[in-house]
Amino acid sequence: MGIVHRYKDQFDWEGVSLSRYPPGKEMRDVNVRWLIGPAEKAPNFALRYFEIEPGGWSSLDKHAHDHGVVILRGQGQVLLGEETFKVAFGDVVYIPPHEVHQLKSVGDEPLGFLCVIPAKDPVEEQVE
Amino acid sequence: MGIVHRYKDQFDWEGVSLSRYPPGKEMRDVNVRWLIGPAEKAPNFALRYFEIEPGGWSSLDKHAHDHGVVILRGQGQVLLGEETFKVAFGDVVYIPPHEVHQLKSVGDEPLGFLCVIPAKDPVEEQVE
Repeated sequence: MGIVHRYKDQFDWEGVSLSRYPPGKEMRDVNVRWLIGPAEKAPNFALRYFEIEPGGWSSLDKHAHDHGVVILRGQGQVLLGEETFKVAFGDVVYIPPHEVHQLKSVGDEPLGFLCVIPAKDPVEEQVE
Repeated sequence: MGIVHRYKDQFDWEGVSLSRYPPGKEMRDVNVRWLIGPAEKAPNFALRYFEIEPGGWSSLDKHAHDHGVVILRGQGQVLLGEETFKVAFGDVVYIPPHEVHQLKSVGDEPLGFLCVIPAKDPVEEQVE
């Protein structure tokens, strides 16, 4: 049976819990809500909502899986390879496999974005 | 190299074209923008932005691939199996494989939503 996660306002959803993003990696002030993923038994992809608090940043990552990102609130900087892009509401970012990437929250409010990943196990790679 | 599709306001993006959704199926007033997909050489998933004009509806579908949906504008009704849900901004819908589904636009403005699918070839099934 299909699942509806009702939006509760303020970027919060019914039936979705808030987590700090996985410990053990170097990042700052990153929170995540898994909107669609293992809990929904989704076999092909996961859809998460991330918030990075003002001044925070995600880890400098490089891995075999790709990301689809849609910015929903705040102001951000996205590192893609060796280039940096400013992003805000509605901007769409595609991060292909093996591309070095990092997101920073540079505004006064949290940087909030949707992020799609394939469901298969992510394998991290060393960033050179 | 990563790709940024800059948001142009009014649910339009740089480097993304607008299409009527595939002909040959019974639906009404459905438009789509492929934000991430074959054009971005995305191997694992596609992310599309759909708009259904007021009074319009998507085809009654049933297929092996699943959908992740996030409503961005307008008012909708989603059929999931035999149940119907009202949806609006921020609501998240997971449509698992083989679930009968259909979306209708029931407000005064277009129903706009993001829709994730796996990249592998979709195979349609007969809706009984």
